[in-house]
Amino acid sequence: MPDTVQVVFTPSGKRGQIAAGKSVLEAAQQLGVDLDTVCGGRGLCDRCQIDLSAGEFAKFGITSDPSHLSPPSAAEREFFGADAKPQRRLGCQAKLLGDAVIDIPPESQAHRQVVRKRADVHGITLGPAVRLHYAEVPEPNMHEPSGDLQRLLDALEFEWGLRDLHCDFHVLAALQPALREGKWKVTAAVHAERDVIGVWPGLKSEAFGVAVDVGSTTIAAHLCDLVSGEARAAGGRMNPQIRFGEDLMSRVSYAMMNPGGEADMTRAVREALQGLIEEVAGEAKVAPEDILDLVLVGNPVMHHLLLGINPVELGGAPFALATDAAVTARASDLELRVHPGARAYLLPCIAGHVGADAAAATLSEAPHAREEITLVVDVGTNAELVLGNSHRMVAASSPTGPAFEGAQISGGQRAAPGAIERVRIDRETLEPRFRVIGCEAWSDEKSFAENAQVTGICGSGIIEVIAELFLAGVIKSDGVIDGAAAEKSARVLPDGKTWCYLLHRDEKKKDSPLIRITQNDVRAIQLAKAALYAGARLLMDKLGIEKLERIRLAGAFGAHIDVKYAMVLGMIPDCELAHVTSAGNAAGAGAIITLLDKTARLEIEDTVRRIEKIETAIEPKFQEHFVDALAIPHKSAAYENLRKEVDLPAPSMGADGEASGRPRRRSRRRN
Amino acid sequence: MPDTVQVVFTPSGKRGQIAAGKSVLEAAQQLGVDLDTVCGGRGLCDRCQIDLSAGEFAKFGITSDPSHLSPPSAAEREFFGADAKPQRRLGCQAKLLGDAVIDIPPESQAHRQVVRKRADVHGITLGPAVRLHYAEVPEPNMHEPSGDLQRLLDALEFEWGLRDLHCDFHVLAALQPALREGKWKVTAAVHAERDVIGVWPGLKSEAFGVAVDVGSTTIAAHLCDLVSGEARAAGGRMNPQIRFGEDLMSRVSYAMMNPGGEADMTRAVREALQGLIEEVAGEAKVAPEDILDLVLVGNPVMHHLLLGINPVELGGAPFALATDAAVTARASDLELRVHPGARAYLLPCIAGHVGADAAAATLSEAPHAREEITLVVDVGTNAELVLGNSHRMVAASSPTGPAFEGAQISGGQRAAPGAIERVRIDRETLEPRFRVIGCEAWSDEKSFAENAQVTGICGSGIIEVIAELFLAGVIKSDGVIDGAAAEKSARVLPDGKTWCYLLHRDEKKKDSPLIRITQNDVRAIQLAKAALYAGARLLMDKLGIEKLERIRLAGAFGAHIDVKYAMVLGMIPDCELAHVTSAGNAAGAGAIITLLDKTARLEIEDTVRRIEKIETAIEPKFQEHFVDALAIPHKSAAYENLRKEVDLPAPSMGADGEASGRPRRRSRRRN
Repeated sequence: MPDTVQVVFTPSGKRGQIAAGKSVLEAAQQLGVDLDTVCGGRGLCDRCQIDLSAGEFAKFGITSDPSHLSPPSAAEREFFGADAKPQRRLGCQAKLLGDAVIDIPPESQAHRQVVRKRADVHGITLGPAVRLHYAEVPEPNMHEPSGDLQRLLDALEFEWGLRDLHCDFHVLAALQPALREGKWKVTAAVHAERDVIGVWPGLKSEAFGVAVDVGSTTIAAHLCDLVSGEARAAGGRMNPQIRFGEDLMSRVSYAMMNPGGEADMTRAVREALQGLIEEVAGEAKVAPEDILDLVLVGNPVMHHLLLGINPVELGGAPFALATDAAVTARASDLELRVHPGARAYLLPCIAGHVGADAAAATLSEAPHAREEITLVVDVGTNAELVLGNSHRMVAASSPTGPAFEGAQISGGQRAAPGAIERVRIDRETLEPRFRVIGCEAWSDEKSFAENAQVTGICGSGIIEVIAELFLAGVIKSDGVIDGAAAEKSARVLPDGKTWCYLLHRDEKKKDSPLIRITQNDVRAIQLAKAALYAGARLLMDKLGIEKLERIRLAGAFGAHIDVKYAMVLGMIPDCELAHVTSAGNAAGAGAIITLLDKTARLEIEDTVRRIEKIETAIEPKFQEHFVDALAIPHKSAAYENLRKEVDLPAPSMGADGEASGRPRRRSRRRN
Repeated sequence: MPDTVQVVFTPSGKRGQIAAGKSVLEAAQQLGVDLDTVCGGRGLCDRCQIDLSAGEFAKFGITSDPSHLSPPSAAEREFFGADAKPQRRLGCQAKLLGDAVIDIPPESQAHRQVVRKRADVHGITLGPAVRLHYAEVPEPNMHEPSGDLQRLLDALEFEWGLRDLHCDFHVLAALQPALREGKWKVTAAVHAERDVIGVWPGLKSEAFGVAVDVGSTTIAAHLCDLVSGEARAAGGRMNPQIRFGEDLMSRVSYAMMNPGGEADMTRAVREALQGLIEEVAGEAKVAPEDILDLVLVGNPVMHHLLLGINPVELGGAPFALATDAAVTARASDLELRVHPGARAYLLPCIAGHVGADAAAATLSEAPHAREEITLVVDVGTNAELVLGNSHRMVAASSPTGPAFEGAQISGGQRAAPGAIERVRIDRETLEPRFRVIGCEAWSDEKSFAENAQVTGICGSGIIEVIAELFLAGVIKSDGVIDGAAAEKSARVLPDGKTWCYLLHRDEKKKDSPLIRITQNDVRAIQLAKAALYAGARLLMDKLGIEKLERIRLAGAFGAHIDVKYAMVLGMIPDCELAHVTSAGNAAGAGAIITLLDKTARLEIEDTVRRIEKIETAIEPKFQEHFVDALAIPHKSAAYENLRKEVDLPAPSMGADGEASGRPRRRSRRRN
């Protein structure tokens, strides 16, 4: 056996001379190669698997051969059993006897890229805040008496380089039994390389975390394996706070009007969260006690209620957050019954109306890490807007109101089975075709009547029907439903002093709802879309730009909306149509990233600090943009581009022959 | 008005040129003079009171006059009212208009010496771990939105220099209401210059702490004002764990024999602690919510049970502590209902049998801060021994058993009213005289029969009666009760194969106990005193010394024992009688020091780390010293010195004429 051997690691390409007889794991650690281990190289866990690449490697000048590693150890024979492949070895067991090229498969990298399947997430580098560390602790002896905790901390420092660890209070009582049951071998869970939050006898190689997006309407959770990075289960449930108020502001009002009302809402959301955590844990066959970390995101009101903070200050100017920093709490502080040492991390809120959910979406969409200017839009009761790139970021919220969510619309409802979500209107006959959530068929197809139950119209349906009515000439550029269209179709009906459009009425079904588009509905959507546009335009002013390079529409609204119709309505500023895309559940994805990669916490905390917060309510330009944007469509290069691609009327071709309703409205404002 | 004025502060003597118009408080801060303030110089608190010294000060070359300070402000007129003295001012209000000599009275020093009255403590420099800080927080505004917490933290940094503060979870919910109720003026309680643990609207200038000595038998608490350093109330109660076992080892046995038994004992002691805290708070008219800090000391078993740690490991070799470091917990972790952010600090245990109480006694007696070699002894079920000086410290526990506490003695009882505590025996007639706790009269005085109720004999009484019986020739040097003495007195009676001495029997009272000293009682005391002596002697061996310069006897035992009799029995090693003194409740005093002065925490943690821990059970020399020390008295220079002072028999003058029982016992051990 030579004194030293030449070792090359792939795919990193790291190489060096290693003393013969060292294990592959030791060689990797010496050369700074990322090879995972939980047991610290004792052949107990399976995390350090490697592949020997056999052959002559001219570029490295070495010959690599299976015989250059020591024969499989008892631990390896037991672990691989009959399925043993000659090249696959445990890095801690295989000792280097000669030159070798060692491949680290992706799953053996401690900081591997994790590609999510069930959640729409970019590649994530695994590095959770809570890690498991196996340690062999010296037994106590009477010659050098010392505390069991001190010997554990010494072992964690010696074996894992963890210095100045602090120990959670509850661990004190669990420590001595664990050390003795494990025969002085234990696994410690360490949070943020600082706090020992749990200890188990022997080797423990499983730890889990849950990422939760606490929305006003629904709570969605993903349970992830913190060791492998794998998503193991997902689930959702209604936010039971709905019984205190449908939208955010009505919940804030509930807290204002009812002493202790905020505590009722806090209790409700925490109980739902506990139930959801138990549900996803059950689905993944994971004990709640094995959940060691939580990441929670939500809008400012949800964020405050979750923390037990009365949200009343968010209900009125100056909309002061209790804290604009990230919060690391104990899960038990939130009355969640998982592992007693589990932590809960809440991303920072950006401003009084731009929440931790927007921060999570920002983390996921990463405008701060790109050169191109990106607008991230999350539409709920307010639209939360984050705009910028690696040089500068601004954020604001726009008071869209809940119209985009189907609220305050005559036939409106939340996006749920039975809701009309797609609408087409014949430009001549004004007859509609539509599709409802939960049924693939269009309303003029045969299978529709058999399968579909129409209950109302959701946000994306309202946007489409209003855009289609505009394109068909029924709605004029100033938003007025044109009574003249009644001559073309009996669906255009008088409604008091205004007109309405009858979208749906199934005479054969007794309970079938009457779904009309009223003048008020059009006004609500006009106000909402003008607010959204004006908020985005204000942020563009701040950056001094006229055109966006990329728009990402986050959340359920962004996933369902047809971008073309958003453009027809004039909801969003100029951007090439191809670069306006849905970001899916970006807030949830950001929560998962934060759960699996603790460096994301520093990244988003730093980004949120750097974001310039704009308050639309005190910006005179906002009001100006708002009024300019009330017309359908408003004059924009994007709309002009769209016209070239698809058959759209010019902005000046509204039924009243005017370019838009702008001049009149503007003069009204000036009075 | 001159541009600058000359200011001299007394008693510090610090002086300098100060810009005219600055306040005395600003001048003090500029010159590094210790002048207290809670409100930060706003005339709201009364902590910065100063006295102007009027006159010509030749040594400083200045003339100081009341007119050299600005006239009393409205705040001062309101505060001092009719009692105003011309020289007494508030430092933050009085502005320097001319040269001045300013005296800082002791009570206005932030780090003043506190001399305790009700607890036996040396002067303490006030510097509690929890301090109150008044701050004026900028209001939120929409132009620069930021969280309320961040503005509070900025204010605390700006006004008080407190950086990188962390905020307790429960404070988040309390913060916004406090800021608004206090009109953006709040007082924050900060622990260890690191954690914001509470926040109150407006100025709060009162904060309290409780120091508790959790003994196996009694729990004693002192409530202190953390702002003034004053002791405000004290109280004690029985440790209810007594129902699980009289002494420590029987409680450990209870935990071993009964699953969950340790939790019962934890609950019992915490409930008693809560009751005691409420009692002392009530006595001082303090709300439990105003208690912000706790310091707790106790032996290792009490320490572990208080923390909810099963003490079984302390019941057998190697006597491993769960932790040998200090523990800072939340009071709520210990299920104590005081302020929700209150902390609880437990001093470190020194070793498996040498507890946080011994550490506290060490802190109070401070051998580590002296040149002279000091032995600190705390006698309970074990004797905890700490020996050394500023150069080197050693510690051990000696298995004295509970005989010194009156247990395992035929007529023995705890030191409580009715217990015989002082005994004299006539050398000729062998008639006793004694005194009981709770009555000033001796038993041969007239008022004794009217006032005293004899119930048993406590530790100090046992030591005196055995020493007196030895001095009277009834007990021989080897501890045998000499039947020949029966010829002198009918009080010496046969008792099976041995003899006993009848100390007390009141024939007139029906329930009066028969109090005898049996051969077994003598043996128990012999074993106990030999263990105590041998432990101390072993530590002296470690330091290589033959004689002690100072012995401090801590605890109730030390307070009651007559040192001369301890010397007669041979309980303690050679030391000049005048330097063997009671340390009072040294553990309780150490707890109070730790409560009032946070630097004491670092001091005792560092000292405990440096103490060399000696385990008597594995030291062959301990056994040797033990056997040598069984005789009464054993041969010692101290006894020889004592003989010269008082009329004592020579060691060789035991009734059997031998020097001691040593040779016989030693040979028995060698068999």
